[in-house]
Amino acid sequence: MSEAQFTVHKTQGNARRATLQTAHGPIQTPVFMAVGTKATVKAMTVEELKECGTQVVLGNTYHLHLRPGEKLIQKLGGLHKFMNWHGPILTDSGGFQVFSLSGLRKLTEEGVEFRSHLDGGKYFLSPEKSMEIQMDLGSDIIMAFDECLKYPATDDEIKASMDLTHRWLKRSKEAMTRKESLLFGIVQGGLKLEHRKYSLEQITSVDLPGYALGGFSVGEPIEMMHELVKVVGPMMPAHKPRYLMGVGTPLDLILSIDSGIDMFDCVMPTRVARNGTLYTWQGKVSIKRNEYKEDPGPLDPECDCYTCRNYSRAYLRHLFLIGEILGSRLNTIHNLHFYMTVMARARKALEEGTWDQYRDFCLSRFVKKDNQKDSAD
Amino acid sequence: MSEAQFTVHKTQGNARRATLQTAHGPIQTPVFMAVGTKATVKAMTVEELKECGTQVVLGNTYHLHLRPGEKLIQKLGGLHKFMNWHGPILTDSGGFQVFSLSGLRKLTEEGVEFRSHLDGGKYFLSPEKSMEIQMDLGSDIIMAFDECLKYPATDDEIKASMDLTHRWLKRSKEAMTRKESLLFGIVQGGLKLEHRKYSLEQITSVDLPGYALGGFSVGEPIEMMHELVKVVGPMMPAHKPRYLMGVGTPLDLILSIDSGIDMFDCVMPTRVARNGTLYTWQGKVSIKRNEYKEDPGPLDPECDCYTCRNYSRAYLRHLFLIGEILGSRLNTIHNLHFYMTVMARARKALEEGTWDQYRDFCLSRFVKKDNQKDSAD
Repeated sequence: MSEAQFTVHKTQGNARRATLQTAHGPIQTPVFMAVGTKATVKAMTVEELKECGTQVVLGNTYHLHLRPGEKLIQKLGGLHKFMNWHGPILTDSGGFQVFSLSGLRKLTEEGVEFRSHLDGGKYFLSPEKSMEIQMDLGSDIIMAFDECLKYPATDDEIKASMDLTHRWLKRSKEAMTRKESLLFGIVQGGLKLEHRKYSLEQITSVDLPGYALGGFSVGEPIEMMHELVKVVGPMMPAHKPRYLMGVGTPLDLILSIDSGIDMFDCVMPTRVARNGTLYTWQGKVSIKRNEYKEDPGPLDPECDCYTCRNYSRAYLRHLFLIGEILGSRLNTIHNLHFYMTVMARARKALEEGTWDQYRDFCLSRFVKKDNQKDSAD
Repeated sequence: MSEAQFTVHKTQGNARRATLQTAHGPIQTPVFMAVGTKATVKAMTVEELKECGTQVVLGNTYHLHLRPGEKLIQKLGGLHKFMNWHGPILTDSGGFQVFSLSGLRKLTEEGVEFRSHLDGGKYFLSPEKSMEIQMDLGSDIIMAFDECLKYPATDDEIKASMDLTHRWLKRSKEAMTRKESLLFGIVQGGLKLEHRKYSLEQITSVDLPGYALGGFSVGEPIEMMHELVKVVGPMMPAHKPRYLMGVGTPLDLILSIDSGIDMFDCVMPTRVARNGTLYTWQGKVSIKRNEYKEDPGPLDPECDCYTCRNYSRAYLRHLFLIGEILGSRLNTIHNLHFYMTVMARARKALEEGTWDQYRDFCLSRFVKKDNQKDSAD
């Protein structure tokens, strides 16, 4: 027998410290995964990602299918080789982007016909097609193809959508024949507990190596998500990894780990970095502000990232104001390092049995200073 | 007595292998200096610059005066500390940008009044002001403030301009009181040999640690420059560094070293890199071309830079087409590494007495494949 795929080492309340084995190495959880939409985590090299503590990189099926195409990537040896990242890769199913980015779409039992946001070209995604693309990419963790409903939706719409997602999950499992990859199912159901429970039962009735909560971060108040995750998180299979998709702020991560979530991804740290917003242990910093004009100090005196070790706030402000690439780079390095450090310290606290103290420390640092509306930054 | 400021170690024909001492360390010549216009070499960290073999970084007085201002940089410890580059820095005088970038300007004996290209704000540069700014920045090599005439100009205009530049040089020398810095004078005179000779006599009549040829790269045919430099280069003081400003392609560098030039700078390798044009030992590559779509090979099989060691042409093409920052980064790393390697090999050839062979090797590689019209890329 090979090593167990998912091993929970410690728990404290609902929070867990675990390891997930993948074809490209183990993932220590709780983990924040860096979003590398188009075969690059924006502004970063893979060496910089590693130096920040990145364990997993995400690829976006929708974007990679459109450009450069999964067949090209496959021909060149797969996504790992193409982008020179040899750690674990998780790919989404393309569903979220089809439903949020693309133009006119036609939803049928078979799948979704949509038009590219780039040139209006006609495309078709189905569970089978999504699996084929993700297998061609050589992804380590493959997400099932699901329907993502917009918030708000009626009960009937939600119910019909959950049933469709359930049928699509079975087809995804059937189609995902790549032995090295792990298929994760996605629990949908919007913001009502009864719907989430219904979807959870459906999705976990299919035996899979991991399960995710999808459909958040689509404009709902963040408190509603946290309330739901608090209940639904611990109801998810205890011996499988739990992945909260598209979330969130440092505060969101801490609260969700406390609800039993193991895995996260979000464009926020990289996107807001390029827009000049930095997360620090003293709260958020908008680097363009005049108060930093002559500030010789580091962005975050409690941070030991490359940016904080070498550059002043005044220099970061200068680079941001003139739109220099180096500004985007230094800001992204800091934000990713900050996120990865929040998670590394969470893992350490869970190992040492000091999770409650660490969680409360984070809350004291993040709650007053972070504006929860950031989720929509 | 301290070590000699400029030591010529070897010569072969007019080409020289020398060392220039500065307050931030020695510069081995012939040298190509990386342009860091606004306190950053675009897309690069200082560590990457060093890894590429960069010895000297240029700062632009005009741009830094406008943003963030030399007084701010001085307050923060000078340009070296501000941008975290602790090797030699050369700053231009601001003249070239004033004459090429800024709006309405009023030229008097005293100096130049001009309007910022950013917001139309009124500024004034004079020899004294330019020296003050460059000293505030803490520059190791300070360029005299000169007038840059547009090509073409009449004989009378050129003559008057040279005389003004000469008077301004004397004022520059008077005003440049910073002991750690070296002041270089700039020979002007357009494209006629008699004018260049006249200016050379004027400028070298002022005793300075180095001399430059200015006023090229303003739209003249590149062959005219090479013909002139071939004659004027060897006429410049042999015991002082000779700097050909704003030049050029790899071919331009080789031809000019052969004419006795020691120092170069140009935005070309970094600028064209961001536009997807790469210099290789096999000629120029436009990475967007369809022929590279599925090309698994490195950009330049004869290059050992980070980009060529780790990424395929297909990946570089993908990054360029979707406008990813990593594409600009990888391309810039390659082009700078290529330029620095051309120069390192030139220094080695001069040390070993094989300059003629190396020059001819470069010509055989660059002449047919480089289009000389590149200077205006």
